[in-house]
Amino acid sequence: MSDAEKAIEYAHKNRERFTKELSEFIKIESISTDDDYKAQVEKAAQWAADHLRNIGIENVKLMPTGGHPVVYGDWLKKPGAPTVLIYGHYDVQPVDPIELWETPPFDATVKGDYLFARGSSDMKGQVMATVNAVESIMKTGDFPVNLKFMFEGEEEIGSLNMGTFLPKHKDLFKADFCLNPDAGAISADEPTITFGLRGLAYFEVHVYGPPRDLHSGLFGGTVHNPAQALAELIAGMHDANGTITLPGFYDSVRVVTDQEREDTAKLPTTSESYLQQTGVPALWGEKEYTPALRTGARPTLEINGLLSGWTGAGSKTVLPAKAMAKISCRLVPDQDPAEVHKQLVRYMEEHAPKTITWEVKLLNDSPWAITDVNTNGVRALASAFETVWSRAPLYRREGGSIGVVAMLQNIVGVESGLVGGSLPDDNIHSPNERMHLPTWHKNMDAFIHFFFNMK
Amino acid sequence: MSDAEKAIEYAHKNRERFTKELSEFIKIESISTDDDYKAQVEKAAQWAADHLRNIGIENVKLMPTGGHPVVYGDWLKKPGAPTVLIYGHYDVQPVDPIELWETPPFDATVKGDYLFARGSSDMKGQVMATVNAVESIMKTGDFPVNLKFMFEGEEEIGSLNMGTFLPKHKDLFKADFCLNPDAGAISADEPTITFGLRGLAYFEVHVYGPPRDLHSGLFGGTVHNPAQALAELIAGMHDANGTITLPGFYDSVRVVTDQEREDTAKLPTTSESYLQQTGVPALWGEKEYTPALRTGARPTLEINGLLSGWTGAGSKTVLPAKAMAKISCRLVPDQDPAEVHKQLVRYMEEHAPKTITWEVKLLNDSPWAITDVNTNGVRALASAFETVWSRAPLYRREGGSIGVVAMLQNIVGVESGLVGGSLPDDNIHSPNERMHLPTWHKNMDAFIHFFFNMK
Repeated sequence: MSDAEKAIEYAHKNRERFTKELSEFIKIESISTDDDYKAQVEKAAQWAADHLRNIGIENVKLMPTGGHPVVYGDWLKKPGAPTVLIYGHYDVQPVDPIELWETPPFDATVKGDYLFARGSSDMKGQVMATVNAVESIMKTGDFPVNLKFMFEGEEEIGSLNMGTFLPKHKDLFKADFCLNPDAGAISADEPTITFGLRGLAYFEVHVYGPPRDLHSGLFGGTVHNPAQALAELIAGMHDANGTITLPGFYDSVRVVTDQEREDTAKLPTTSESYLQQTGVPALWGEKEYTPALRTGARPTLEINGLLSGWTGAGSKTVLPAKAMAKISCRLVPDQDPAEVHKQLVRYMEEHAPKTITWEVKLLNDSPWAITDVNTNGVRALASAFETVWSRAPLYRREGGSIGVVAMLQNIVGVESGLVGGSLPDDNIHSPNERMHLPTWHKNMDAFIHFFFNMK
Repeated sequence: MSDAEKAIEYAHKNRERFTKELSEFIKIESISTDDDYKAQVEKAAQWAADHLRNIGIENVKLMPTGGHPVVYGDWLKKPGAPTVLIYGHYDVQPVDPIELWETPPFDATVKGDYLFARGSSDMKGQVMATVNAVESIMKTGDFPVNLKFMFEGEEEIGSLNMGTFLPKHKDLFKADFCLNPDAGAISADEPTITFGLRGLAYFEVHVYGPPRDLHSGLFGGTVHNPAQALAELIAGMHDANGTITLPGFYDSVRVVTDQEREDTAKLPTTSESYLQQTGVPALWGEKEYTPALRTGARPTLEINGLLSGWTGAGSKTVLPAKAMAKISCRLVPDQDPAEVHKQLVRYMEEHAPKTITWEVKLLNDSPWAITDVNTNGVRALASAFETVWSRAPLYRREGGSIGVVAMLQNIVGVESGLVGGSLPDDNIHSPNERMHLPTWHKNMDAFIHFFFNMK
């Protein structure tokens, strides 16, 4: 029996305990965006640190940042062997709308092949898949490579403090490769390596009218309703084709190559599969790009939230004093979040009428990232997937944003291998988030192979 | 000393007590739109009924409706003399946004010439002005006319149940004239008789996309964002001139006559005064009509509320499952709320894209009303104002809607005299609602003269 096989046997025998430990981790309501949950976020960091210590990781510590702490740990007893940095985040999204959850969001509930809970798929389950793989090797033999851990607590709020934290600690996090299981897979049967991530620029746009709410009967028709003015501004941000109209928005967008069109056409993500996954009556977006290209290679501008006036039950005949929209752009090479901020401000300058005043706030941003797929790390991952799934992985660009990937590339000089067991129908960021347990188990096996492939 | 002078002397002597009693009435949080306040609404009805009994009104009772009760009372001891119906409402608007109030909304606070509180101006203060006038005559001599009272508890929610209540009790409310002090005045120095009120049709428009919130990074660009779709639909409801685009919306709108243009031009409500009252950087609306005509003679479509996705602090990268707008139209002769409902539905049918589904709910409606100014009642009011202010009242159309006025006209056959001490800068429906005390006192005096003028 090989060392990898021994570790995999151990992992299989301990699946029940692994699920129990994951449920404990999930139980901690580590919602990073909401200050009311600050103590819970800290508690989750503490839990992860304790767990690393328990499986034999050394120098474990909570490192303060401008916000929630980063959990560090290492195991550096293989001089000469490569060092793998394991990235994860222990924070989760809010649970609203809570009434749509079929099980309590922080009580992990197993139904059939799925474990339901906030943070199960995104990404406490993925964190534990790597940690369980490490434990399985540690407990059955000698670890083949050196290890470092970086678990952050602000991924769901755009890794707000990572940009100031990382430069201060760039030697500590130096490594030959970063295993980042936050990117998910196309399906349970199709192991996936993500080589491109979009960046993010997240804004609040405020429109102000009268200094106080007015009676709509007395002043309607003479005052530009701020909710209407905001709607008019939002409506103008896309043309009829779904193309974004911010001035200069596409100037630095890399043209999609024919090769990329061909590669993407081979992916199983078709219009049909998008319709099925989303449940909408019809798809939307730029007609000259396939849905897979629209979510991977093209930038977007989405309305994440709208608020104005009376939103309770019944009727209130108010002409609201103000209106607010949360608007975020997903960015692709070679767009720059700071430039997009300027473009949005320029759009408002050009289009906002004189009947209102306005304000654009940048809430957070993260750069796009493209991984070099011809590295030892990516090859070790590909081979591990092939061993477990008996098929080569798919390579794709992904629509999401993981701020730390570009920062590790630019600040520390480490390439990331973007993988993970999160599936497109896992309802991440939505009610009834779930994780596919068979995929979770297969990922543990694959990560065990990966560590041995790296040596 | 005439009977009127005796009553006025009594009113002046009792001003302090009147203010104390009004503060008690205000203290009761009778927010009709919010079910949590149901007991308080009932309590306010009870308070008003008790007060009527205390000043000598007979047959006082709370009459059940489909919602909040109507307070009835009468004094019918002058056979042969006319009967005046006194209308009022004891319900108030919600107080949100509560943080903008400078004093507790239900603790009446006198500062200088103003009494600050929710319901002070709209319209517990106006109700008490009539009731105090009645008391002052009752306590100092013989009442010159017969009296009936109708205080409703659902004016702020569009008199939802009045349309079924009134036909059942039309004999009870028969009268020669209705004194309705819910219409306010143009300024403290300009007593005003409102001869036209706009109607109302209040809707909720819902736009539905995916059955659950989606991750904006994974699905943005392929799914039509419901918040964006709603914004696009709202933006299309007015053209660049501010004219409403619902199909057929203006078909039954009466053309503004040259006479009306001339009369309105004489009113002191200018662009300058609207700018001052509203505090907006520039006015808005149909250029071919003056602001006074836009709020009085032209219909409007206003966004009263907007809600979609994440509206809390910070960022959540969600593609919302749905979006909602509260939209209300103010209607003028000869528009019909039921027709406007159909026009909005037709607009949605014609403009909503196939990428979303939608729903239009009619929350409430009330018809427009035009009062005949050549009646004894209106003449008695005009003469009373002239006595107190030493100038003739102004006649205007008003932008607001008081559902009961048209219903009393159509169902019971009673014309209303629309007056009141509410001023344009009283912040009704807004934080820091206030009532101008000198105008309140003058209105009591005027109502005393009015009753004697009616005999």
